[in-house]
Amino acid sequence: MKAQASLKAAVLGASGYTGAETVRLLAGHPHVDAVAATGHSLAGKQLSEIFPHLAGPTDLPVVKAEDVAWDEVDVAFGCLPHGTSQDLIETLPAHVKTIDLSADYRLRDADLYAQTYGRPHLNAERTARVKYGLPEWRGEELKGETLVACPGCYPTASLLALLPIIRDIDPDSVIIDAKSGVSGAGRGLKEGNLFSEAAEGLHAYGVGTHRHAPEIEQELNLQAGRSDIGVTFTPHLIPMTRGELVTCHVRGDVDQIQAALEAKYADAPFISVLPLGSPTPDTRHVRGTNNCRIAVYPDRVKGRVVVIAVIDNLVKGSSGQAIQNLNLMMGWDETLGLAGLQALFP
Amino acid sequence: MKAQASLKAAVLGASGYTGAETVRLLAGHPHVDAVAATGHSLAGKQLSEIFPHLAGPTDLPVVKAEDVAWDEVDVAFGCLPHGTSQDLIETLPAHVKTIDLSADYRLRDADLYAQTYGRPHLNAERTARVKYGLPEWRGEELKGETLVACPGCYPTASLLALLPIIRDIDPDSVIIDAKSGVSGAGRGLKEGNLFSEAAEGLHAYGVGTHRHAPEIEQELNLQAGRSDIGVTFTPHLIPMTRGELVTCHVRGDVDQIQAALEAKYADAPFISVLPLGSPTPDTRHVRGTNNCRIAVYPDRVKGRVVVIAVIDNLVKGSSGQAIQNLNLMMGWDETLGLAGLQALFP
Amino acid sequence: MKAQASLKAAVLGASGYTGAETVRLLAGHPHVDAVAATGHSLAGKQLSEIFPHLAGPTDLPVVKAEDVAWDEVDVAFGCLPHGTSQDLIETLPAHVKTIDLSADYRLRDADLYAQTYGRPHLNAERTARVKYGLPEWRGEELKGETLVACPGCYPTASLLALLPIIRDIDPDSVIIDAKSGVSGAGRGLKEGNLFSEAAEGLHAYGVGTHRHAPEIEQELNLQAGRSDIGVTFTPHLIPMTRGELVTCHVRGDVDQIQAALEAKYADAPFISVLPLGSPTPDTRHVRGTNNCRIAVYPDRVKGRVVVIAVIDNLVKGSSGQAIQNLNLMMGWDETLGLAGLQALFP
Amino acid sequence: MKAQASLKAAVLGASGYTGAETVRLLAGHPHVDAVAATGHSLAGKQLSEIFPHLAGPTDLPVVKAEDVAWDEVDVAFGCLPHGTSQDLIETLPAHVKTIDLSADYRLRDADLYAQTYGRPHLNAERTARVKYGLPEWRGEELKGETLVACPGCYPTASLLALLPIIRDIDPDSVIIDAKSGVSGAGRGLKEGNLFSEAAEGLHAYGVGTHRHAPEIEQELNLQAGRSDIGVTFTPHLIPMTRGELVTCHVRGDVDQIQAALEAKYADAPFISVLPLGSPTPDTRHVRGTNNCRIAVYPDRVKGRVVVIAVIDNLVKGSSGQAIQNLNLMMGWDETLGLAGLQALFP
Repeated sequence: MKAQASLKAAVLGASGYTGAETVRLLAGHPHVDAVAATGHSLAGKQLSEIFPHLAGPTDLPVVKAEDVAWDEVDVAFGCLPHGTSQDLIETLPAHVKTIDLSADYRLRDADLYAQTYGRPHLNAERTARVKYGLPEWRGEELKGETLVACPGCYPTASLLALLPIIRDIDPDSVIIDAKSGVSGAGRGLKEGNLFSEAAEGLHAYGVGTHRHAPEIEQELNLQAGRSDIGVTFTPHLIPMTRGELVTCHVRGDVDQIQAALEAKYADAPFISVLPLGSPTPDTRHVRGTNNCRIAVYPDRVKGRVVVIAVIDNLVKGSSGQAIQNLNLMMGWDETLGLAGLQALFP
Repeated sequence: MKAQASLKAAVLGASGYTGAETVRLLAGHPHVDAVAATGHSLAGKQLSEIFPHLAGPTDLPVVKAEDVAWDEVDVAFGCLPHGTSQDLIETLPAHVKTIDLSADYRLRDADLYAQTYGRPHLNAERTARVKYGLPEWRGEELKGETLVACPGCYPTASLLALLPIIRDIDPDSVIIDAKSGVSGAGRGLKEGNLFSEAAEGLHAYGVGTHRHAPEIEQELNLQAGRSDIGVTFTPHLIPMTRGELVTCHVRGDVDQIQAALEAKYADAPFISVLPLGSPTPDTRHVRGTNNCRIAVYPDRVKGRVVVIAVIDNLVKGSSGQAIQNLNLMMGWDETLGLAGLQALFP
Repeated sequence: MKAQASLKAAVLGASGYTGAETVRLLAGHPHVDAVAATGHSLAGKQLSEIFPHLAGPTDLPVVKAEDVAWDEVDVAFGCLPHGTSQDLIETLPAHVKTIDLSADYRLRDADLYAQTYGRPHLNAERTARVKYGLPEWRGEELKGETLVACPGCYPTASLLALLPIIRDIDPDSVIIDAKSGVSGAGRGLKEGNLFSEAAEGLHAYGVGTHRHAPEIEQELNLQAGRSDIGVTFTPHLIPMTRGELVTCHVRGDVDQIQAALEAKYADAPFISVLPLGSPTPDTRHVRGTNNCRIAVYPDRVKGRVVVIAVIDNLVKGSSGQAIQNLNLMMGWDETLGLAGLQALFP
Repeated sequence: MKAQASLKAAVLGASGYTGAETVRLLAGHPHVDAVAATGHSLAGKQLSEIFPHLAGPTDLPVVKAEDVAWDEVDVAFGCLPHGTSQDLIETLPAHVKTIDLSADYRLRDADLYAQTYGRPHLNAERTARVKYGLPEWRGEELKGETLVACPGCYPTASLLALLPIIRDIDPDSVIIDAKSGVSGAGRGLKEGNLFSEAAEGLHAYGVGTHRHAPEIEQELNLQAGRSDIGVTFTPHLIPMTRGELVTCHVRGDVDQIQAALEAKYADAPFISVLPLGSPTPDTRHVRGTNNCRIAVYPDRVKGRVVVIAVIDNLVKGSSGQAIQNLNLMMGWDETLGLAGLQALFP
């Protein structure tokens, strides 16, 4: 059904949620065909045995990465855990363009990576120059790149809200109170992710220590031309599957902040800056889409402003953004395969 | 089954969630019997027709407030919306001790009440002297009172976390990012509270304008001996029924804050201050109980501290606390009828 | 973006869930443009004020039905409650092709309609000849029709499972135990549909009296060439938003039943008959799609068989099937606008 | 707080849900103290590290079963998986009264056990005479027993509904369509029990093969004085944590069935037979309690009747019933420790 000249894509780590979501979204891409899905312990199964919703045209055999016919693959989506991801990506043939959804190439500073993720980086030189694939900020630069690092889900929402305004606000005032659905924790088997323990309850986690904070700081400092901006980042696990909301508490001027956001995203196809005074954005309104909605509110305390952003953590927060990045790497329209996604409501 | 000398209680507004919860909890109180349940449009029904879980010994006919035999009533629990609540409470006979769960007597300043709730107060003189029933702070003072105002659910959690430390922290640094289950919105019929619209999603509401902020400020200022403390208060609606979590971002010293909380609540039967380094508290761990769990975390930004408190909004956040207040008004052990409640997990 | 020759569609009753879902799905249809959305009490608003997920290209002003420029409308989707639906449909100009999602034209017998729905039918003669739009069964016949009645959500799942086998099984043995998400109850404001009352619980409803039973019987009798088949139909409300599962308990031969289903649906693009021995189908696997999955299991009691079917009640159970019907009325490929829908999992 | 003469109880397998629930419920029992909690891989931890809601007076160190001071233990609650349970129970000292919540002693026929559970029984002679602890049916007989087998959660609800009527109905007509919350699957780590996979969806499981069916048949045959009654039993996993509902489709006379149920349970403290014509029972109305609600409905098909029963699977379906059984073994009032439980709603 797709054009002959389609890219052939391999999805590395197709047995996790971001892998499955990448396969699902690629099915709607006019110029890319998923031709390989890799897995380790599940190799030998069909993808549809692991994810029955992928039965039919999206089905693929799961194979070990070493068994992929790499000659026939143009692009790889890295949907593996950090560490495992670079172990594999560093072995891929040079002709394979790679979009890495893991944390492995997000931090330019390999020492910071080692400190944050608890293992040395295999390729410090490379991570220092890999582009950070937040498409609304690096769009032009991504064309022709062979490896792009997709931002984490929390950094995506946080940076889309904060990058346009970091020069307008008190940079030392940033407090990000973040909330994510359980799918953000992946498919790993932990008691806390069981339905009976995640439903009907709520808690914070990684308070003061979450690994996404250095990533957010890296980009804010870069944008502000500084090196000392630190952010408070406090994530919470919400009893829902998909969706992420960041509540950013900052000091600044509400009108200036609104104007900066509107100016920045005037032509961004996936970003909506709601008019001042709008109802609050809800994760439901972007569920299943690559969209981000941002809204600004004056706080009751003079000089404080609340900026809220919502995304679907598995789409704009990972697989959708990865495809948007591929589109930009190829010089295509960035909305290919993503424009038709509509929020599933109710 | 109960002692002859039991108090006779009327629950005003028994067709809402706090009314039903008050009836439920009173069934376990050794010295109080619910003898009347009032409702307006539902008068004439049995309580069990509205709330089938109250069938059996807890069942009562719902009657109009004017049809209650007030001579036989010792104590009233006001479970009505603000406004409606004072309209009725101001007409009750003088011998009826009243615990008001609405917002009507929480603000000492009737002008602030009028401004916040959009109607003048019927009895400005009275509201100025009614005790604010946060039992851990007003325990001794409540004895012998005839009207006590129960704090709002958000103020309960926020103040339990912040009152002990307000003199230790930068009072201008307080940012409360709050999260509540849907039962906090009551039983009113609004699209946003439908299952199909509240499940699998998340949004903030009342950003910068929520009515609980002035209440929190009133008590913080009182405790700090100031009048100019303002707080950022940003609540979020969480897709769960019961439970409330407040994430308080403050500037201060983590050890000093921990010490202040431990000192204050060393003997408080319902408050647990978790040791430094504990896993984060979860609303599930207090569901169905009058307990509050508080935990303190150093932030990654030097000088910032995160204080988290969890409660069940319908128990410690309303009906349970109301009963605790009654116990104190009567000079009883404050845990009567509440000590046996155990968290329902999973 | 769409071809010039697109049909112009009006969605009647766009403020309910099936109306919103029809607008959403039409956005992906290559030959149809939604040009009007009607509502009564909400006329004057934008659709996106009611349903924020419809902001953008799918947005429309909500107008009263009498204010639609019917000359410019080719097709109408009736997304109104029964009764209200025929009141409007009977007034539409003759050139408007109509797909009615309500119950108003499903029963051929106007007396049975009156008895089931508690009001006389406006047009008994018409309802007697309107085609029952279960596309897998009436595909050819729908071409050129001007009014088609979409089956109810429960009848859709039940009949897809039972029609192919009704001649193979004991027709007096049919027991349908059905389960639906809360969105099936629509957007009406009732306590039982509040999050706090629908979450974390489960109940049957309409036991022995549900209005979908006569509809199921009508079609089963027609297919079996009988008039006396009665079915037990017991629906349950499940704490989820979308999805419907019917568990059909019948007497028959498992292999014969499997063969009949496979033969019938060999070429049906939206129906999957799972191989014998498959894992049980889950509503998640069809969420957001027009698909139906059917699976057959031998019971432990000899001679009894369990047939399970799952659909998304808002897509195959209403709006998606309506579009499939339009495609067939127009003589188009029945998958237009629907083939690209993929199940949202997790 | 409790009487000196309290029994000392050990909870075997305290790291699962039924173990935790038993500890929780024993805290409210006036004559029993939990003094030991056993676990295998988690031995060495405090129970509150595994289940934070058990912090405080209910906390206990988790120890290996072989490290329990059995001399000081009067009663053991077996909360282990089948197989593991008998392995331990067969080694307990003779003075320890045991209530086994596993399946190990439910089937009198050791061959049927072996066939159903895939391993031979260690003590065929014993399982043949152990009392099946459905207290409403075996109340008198349990006094003085040293080992009682608690029914499975599904058999509890099913048998409470069907035992009183099995002689009144067509015994070959029984179809049980059952629904359970996810906690019924225990705390084992499986993808299907993850929040992201269990929420917002629904499926049947164990169709035609579930292990609870032989148990139901054993008791129905015993009561009916037959040996050939077989039941269709089809369970479904519902996206909620607690609660179980069985929909029993039978042939019989509605009035006779209602009368039989009312007669049987007239004095049963935990069983409510709702009057004919009542609203359908909901699992919410019994959540957290040892109650069972049963309701009878005439079907639209003449001669068919629907009987519905709801329980909390972790209380009446396991730990609560276990305590009720202990009460009867001891000759105590069967409601001790259970009478005060009230349904948590909303």
